[in-house]
Amino acid sequence: MLEISQRAKNVSPSLTLAITEQANRMKAQGIDVVGFGVGEPDFDTPSYVVDAAKYAMDRGMTKYTAVAGMKELRENISKKLAADNGLAYAADRIVVSNGGKQALFNVFQTIIEPGDEVILLAPYWLSYPEMVKFCGGKVVAVDLADDGFQLNVEKIEKAVTDKTKAILINTPNNPTGAVYGGDSLRALAAMLEKYPDIWVISDEIYEKLVYDGEKHVSFASVDGMYERTFLVNGMSKGYAMTGWRIGYTACPSAETAKALCGLQSHQTSGANTIAQYASSVALTGGGEFMAEMKGIFDGRRKLMYEGFEGAKHVTVNMPKGAFYMMVDVSGTFGKSYRGETINSAPDFAALLLKHAHVAVVPCDGFGAPKYIRLSYATGENEIKKGTSRIKEFLEEVK
Amino acid sequence: MLEISQRAKNVSPSLTLAITEQANRMKAQGIDVVGFGVGEPDFDTPSYVVDAAKYAMDRGMTKYTAVAGMKELRENISKKLAADNGLAYAADRIVVSNGGKQALFNVFQTIIEPGDEVILLAPYWLSYPEMVKFCGGKVVAVDLADDGFQLNVEKIEKAVTDKTKAILINTPNNPTGAVYGGDSLRALAAMLEKYPDIWVISDEIYEKLVYDGEKHVSFASVDGMYERTFLVNGMSKGYAMTGWRIGYTACPSAETAKALCGLQSHQTSGANTIAQYASSVALTGGGEFMAEMKGIFDGRRKLMYEGFEGAKHVTVNMPKGAFYMMVDVSGTFGKSYRGETINSAPDFAALLLKHAHVAVVPCDGFGAPKYIRLSYATGENEIKKGTSRIKEFLEEVK
Repeated sequence: MLEISQRAKNVSPSLTLAITEQANRMKAQGIDVVGFGVGEPDFDTPSYVVDAAKYAMDRGMTKYTAVAGMKELRENISKKLAADNGLAYAADRIVVSNGGKQALFNVFQTIIEPGDEVILLAPYWLSYPEMVKFCGGKVVAVDLADDGFQLNVEKIEKAVTDKTKAILINTPNNPTGAVYGGDSLRALAAMLEKYPDIWVISDEIYEKLVYDGEKHVSFASVDGMYERTFLVNGMSKGYAMTGWRIGYTACPSAETAKALCGLQSHQTSGANTIAQYASSVALTGGGEFMAEMKGIFDGRRKLMYEGFEGAKHVTVNMPKGAFYMMVDVSGTFGKSYRGETINSAPDFAALLLKHAHVAVVPCDGFGAPKYIRLSYATGENEIKKGTSRIKEFLEEVK
Repeated sequence: MLEISQRAKNVSPSLTLAITEQANRMKAQGIDVVGFGVGEPDFDTPSYVVDAAKYAMDRGMTKYTAVAGMKELRENISKKLAADNGLAYAADRIVVSNGGKQALFNVFQTIIEPGDEVILLAPYWLSYPEMVKFCGGKVVAVDLADDGFQLNVEKIEKAVTDKTKAILINTPNNPTGAVYGGDSLRALAAMLEKYPDIWVISDEIYEKLVYDGEKHVSFASVDGMYERTFLVNGMSKGYAMTGWRIGYTACPSAETAKALCGLQSHQTSGANTIAQYASSVALTGGGEFMAEMKGIFDGRRKLMYEGFEGAKHVTVNMPKGAFYMMVDVSGTFGKSYRGETINSAPDFAALLLKHAHVAVVPCDGFGAPKYIRLSYATGENEIKKGTSRIKEFLEEVK
């Protein structure tokens, strides 16, 4: 018998994907589905970035780059980290990857041994636990849902064991939209100082999207954390460049950068050359574009929040960053809609899609089984229509 | 102590890279180095492909695609496999990856369990054993250097054990330039029929580069092999699209395609969207471009071979495909150049670079310690100059 590997069998089927596929099938049938599922800005990539890509192609920049990425791009990332985050990284400490996702994947591969424990703060992005499993690592989840999605250092410290190899911090957070302030990050750092063997992975992909006067603080810039933090960021969310697949890691040492690079060299090599050049140019500008995009997202955020006013059975959390909103739907569990019982967030999402034609993501895979996640990276009319459909749906839940 | 993983420590430092870096340092110092190291066509990507990429950007095709790749691209790959290889693959059996390298990496991840054995035919591409190690698999190398780099089925069968999980076939071959004919592939298939548990990975990335009237035969098209073969190919070598990073796998079943896709979904997601669209268009044409490129490579191949006429101590093998030539330098082992002893191919390569200013790749990492690999994907003048320098160098080896 031809057998596939246990590793491949262990991959969790993606509920998000199943919902998205069903939504697409319904759309193809002509049904007017409102999509709150996708985690992607609906903006086009700014034209100065597209122009840079065209320039690159016209100049024959279509050949391999170094595995770590084009020198020019790594130098501009280095400048960005200095200017935005007050961090000094030489270009040889930076590794460019195929999106922030590969950057994270390779950081885990570089540090996690089979049997090692990795602390994830729930709710978390659903790919983190899959990446940990892929390395043979064990996820230790700390649930922060009852802490307003904010860091509870005492709770986190209780999860530390002598097998803890790493902790992952994601601010601004997907799926919660939480932003961790400087004080709470410093408190976390103070606790971690007691455990010198623990690496930190800091996923800062939503850095540019913070609202209400919040300020993004990079964990690597907190005292004592620079030497143990892998800072992961990328072009996707801030520059509306999701499809370009450019992310990067700023490594705690030249040795770790080299190790990360070694793994990537046999896995994919360097990222797309044209996209690397375009990203390099993107980093030299984009302030106006980002300010505009952020303003629009901010408006949509408020619109979505207001859209839930008077909604029955659910609790909505006002996010401070990224472009997601978490809705606690556990108040509907045990109740039913037109005779069909809701026992879980996936039940809720399935019924909502089927009857109200709104696609949302149930957060079981995010370590938050009471919640659904809504993305407001979509048009205002869609937000109004979608939230009003959800409210009508909830009226019938009994 | 903050520790990196054994997995990361196990990655072999790349000799190729070390040589390339030294060559680049010498070039930066103004030294006229001839480079035979790089495995990349020196042609620009054809203009109709560049135009397609520009079209894609102008139409806002800069967002995520499905993990398996754009439907349009997978359909054109399906058509290509039917037209060129006589193979029927539905689009849902095809997974697009970040280059042929990731396609191979993910196939290994999908089928290899720790402890499984993988048969590699030496000389082999140096990333294969690294990929196997990464999965915890064990490389079982079968040396075909004494078989004119051709398949010796009897020898291969001796390497089969009850732990054998896969065999990798690469034709046209990197680094040997060998092309396996239909008869020898059928003989291999007949042997494999006795072992129904063994998967086959067929790396066909150099498909379009065959000379002397040779014909590429896809192993999946050989009787009985379709159901157990992962066919890997890509855009890099045939379309001069190395930097675009688009490769693909045609899978033996919908189940295996889904498993492969599941792994990729948490590793990188889909490949660069613009490059996917450009690849889709690339596959609808390019015949003229490829014929011209092939003709030029063919001429360079002959030129390089002739360049070795009268060379002392070495044996050169005339390749039939790809753009590499293998040179057996074991006749220089134990001899010396200007007082420095040559004991290995890396010694030879290091001295050649230092004194004759020619960069070549020693094949230790390719499972062929007697050999160096020369790429003729470079200009005619470089080939003449480089081979003549090598001959002069060899004159002084005593």
